[in-house]
Amino acid sequence: METPWEYRYAHRVKGMKSSIIRELLKLTQDPEIISFGGGLPAPEVFPLEEFTKATNTVLQNEGALALQYSATEGYLPLREMITRHKSRYSVSIHPDNVLITSGSQQALDFMGRVFINRGDYIVVESPTYMGALQAFNAYGAQYVPVPTDENGMIVEELEKALRVGPKFIYILPNFQNPSGVTLSLERRQQIVELADKYGVPIVEDDPYGQLRYEGDHLPSLSYLDSVYRGDNGAYSGNVIYMSTFSKLLSPGIRMAWVIAPEKVIKKLVQTKQGADLHSPTFNQMIVYEVGKGGFIDEHVKKIRQVYKERRDVMVETMEETWPVEASWNVPKGGMFLWGKVPQNIDTTILLEKAIAKKVAYVPGMAFTVDETCKNAMRLNFSYSSPDVIREGMTRLGTMLKEEIYK
Amino acid sequence: METPWEYRYAHRVKGMKSSIIRELLKLTQDPEIISFGGGLPAPEVFPLEEFTKATNTVLQNEGALALQYSATEGYLPLREMITRHKSRYSVSIHPDNVLITSGSQQALDFMGRVFINRGDYIVVESPTYMGALQAFNAYGAQYVPVPTDENGMIVEELEKALRVGPKFIYILPNFQNPSGVTLSLERRQQIVELADKYGVPIVEDDPYGQLRYEGDHLPSLSYLDSVYRGDNGAYSGNVIYMSTFSKLLSPGIRMAWVIAPEKVIKKLVQTKQGADLHSPTFNQMIVYEVGKGGFIDEHVKKIRQVYKERRDVMVETMEETWPVEASWNVPKGGMFLWGKVPQNIDTTILLEKAIAKKVAYVPGMAFTVDETCKNAMRLNFSYSSPDVIREGMTRLGTMLKEEIYK
Repeated sequence: METPWEYRYAHRVKGMKSSIIRELLKLTQDPEIISFGGGLPAPEVFPLEEFTKATNTVLQNEGALALQYSATEGYLPLREMITRHKSRYSVSIHPDNVLITSGSQQALDFMGRVFINRGDYIVVESPTYMGALQAFNAYGAQYVPVPTDENGMIVEELEKALRVGPKFIYILPNFQNPSGVTLSLERRQQIVELADKYGVPIVEDDPYGQLRYEGDHLPSLSYLDSVYRGDNGAYSGNVIYMSTFSKLLSPGIRMAWVIAPEKVIKKLVQTKQGADLHSPTFNQMIVYEVGKGGFIDEHVKKIRQVYKERRDVMVETMEETWPVEASWNVPKGGMFLWGKVPQNIDTTILLEKAIAKKVAYVPGMAFTVDETCKNAMRLNFSYSSPDVIREGMTRLGTMLKEEIYK
Repeated sequence: METPWEYRYAHRVKGMKSSIIRELLKLTQDPEIISFGGGLPAPEVFPLEEFTKATNTVLQNEGALALQYSATEGYLPLREMITRHKSRYSVSIHPDNVLITSGSQQALDFMGRVFINRGDYIVVESPTYMGALQAFNAYGAQYVPVPTDENGMIVEELEKALRVGPKFIYILPNFQNPSGVTLSLERRQQIVELADKYGVPIVEDDPYGQLRYEGDHLPSLSYLDSVYRGDNGAYSGNVIYMSTFSKLLSPGIRMAWVIAPEKVIKKLVQTKQGADLHSPTFNQMIVYEVGKGGFIDEHVKKIRQVYKERRDVMVETMEETWPVEASWNVPKGGMFLWGKVPQNIDTTILLEKAIAKKVAYVPGMAFTVDETCKNAMRLNFSYSSPDVIREGMTRLGTMLKEEIYK
């Protein structure tokens, strides 16, 4: 018989779906499978030495603070460091515009918690980040997917979407997850203007902005919004910006941040009080200690070098071993490449065959709220070594040829 | 003009109230104020050396794992350690019954998220832990407060409450926060039986169970439920049990756990995926490394010694300096003592005067959903040194005498 706890659980619906990405992460634990499915940074670039040094310093000098409860909004020196970082990208903010979160996933969850009422429409790119969908789903969001091309969200389609009366626009402008696409400067400006025209605010999710392997850095939507409003670099408040230390230092420490208007931060702080009191003091102080002397800037150069090589190997192997019927983009940064196979192949069904061949990816359907990505797959190039990438992508190419020419 | 983000925030209500405890925590940063308001462990008992050693070991031997993403349910060796710990208290569980959370606050939030629909009734002790109220409020809970005495929840009153059809009973059986009261063995058995009779499950929140300074350990509700059902120590599933490393090792690392039926854990894991992916791998591995050799058992002895002395100093000072019209309990463990002043004094109003005299506490009203604690205050004895406790309690006593005999 069901216990009352089980009964209560079984007989209610809260709109939360199982996450394919987490199930796939489990596959990566089978050492025989080459998985391009996860979104893991390369462990080779984790700054172990700096973490060891920083931890020892923090525990030795400020151990009683580091192991104690602390303020919900986050460790002030860390928020100040983020403030300085943001200013370097021309947007001047105050530490009171910053909330430290336990990973970007928590920031996404809070967006849902504070802003989404059941049935609200959220504008998303098609495809979009599935972790965001999972977070927003829990609050009963509905979606208006906007088609994208090699320059990101198609602006004419966005305008149609804005007429639906959405709560906000959720967008990843740099090396988007899953597509790897970067939103062009012209479109960034147009989106900021359209958002203003329709009075719809923007959530700018930027986990990969620093991981650019070629071309010039493009200004953030939060900056362009400030310019558009004549605020000349002062934070204008229509764009909530979020980023993370997961890709710069380590995802295992769960440290990210949100930049928002002060009033919104206050509301998010209240939310965080109820959700987990605060992010670990220990981790916040270690990240500050690791980052305070400018280490992250130097370290990112190394990450770029490693990931660029892996991206290149992935693309080269595709050129060599994939059937001509398949296509893909060459992302200018980030961690993902978006592959497309002929329309008659469903990559969700194909995944089972791939796993039998000891290779894995995430099917496109995991990232959409419509049917447009049935023949697509997300391929991660940051985690595996170049040799493993070559082997895995060859396996995929061989399988695809068998599938197409069978 | 309000930005759209601010507008969206200002014009919606999500039932979250500002937390008095967090505002009070800010006061503790003024070094002149002696605050008995927080719920902070003594920094003197933080095992800095063990954390330093454990961190170095983890980063050196398993750094690539510690800094990487990991499974949502938590680090398996840590879940196994918790499984063994629970078995020592006669309840046999499986690691799949355990979820690692980012502090108990997250576990409370998840209880709300998964089980509470707007308008649901939750049975709570009066007074009860305000962090739980804050967590449940966010999901639109209503409360059925059950009066308590020196032996905890009054069982006759509980039976009345159960007839309202509550979703679950939330209870802190050991050295309750805020009252310091311990639920008697007889009542524990009665509550387990009543819960079964009405088919209402129990959330047993036990952050302080290990911090007993006198008397014998009492069996948990989760164990008694197993006995009552004839399961003879096998986890029976009607009691969700939660505890934390915050009081055993450090709250700044944000590490706690939930024990629940496997099906419920699966649902909680899904919830956690959307909320923050997983708790920091780094912290989980460090806690395991610190705890694996039996260190926590030894360490807790030290904590007990330190806190018992502080409790005794607090009680002695009250006997010496407080007016005879005031009363208080002598908690057998935990971190809090519950003081009562004459009924005509409102401790919420009195707090402002106390702060002017450079001493602080949490007013009783913060812990109730009714009007019964207007003349009560929660006094923390774990954080301050004996000398500071003596000084602060004398200040409070002097102020109370002025207030009563003015």
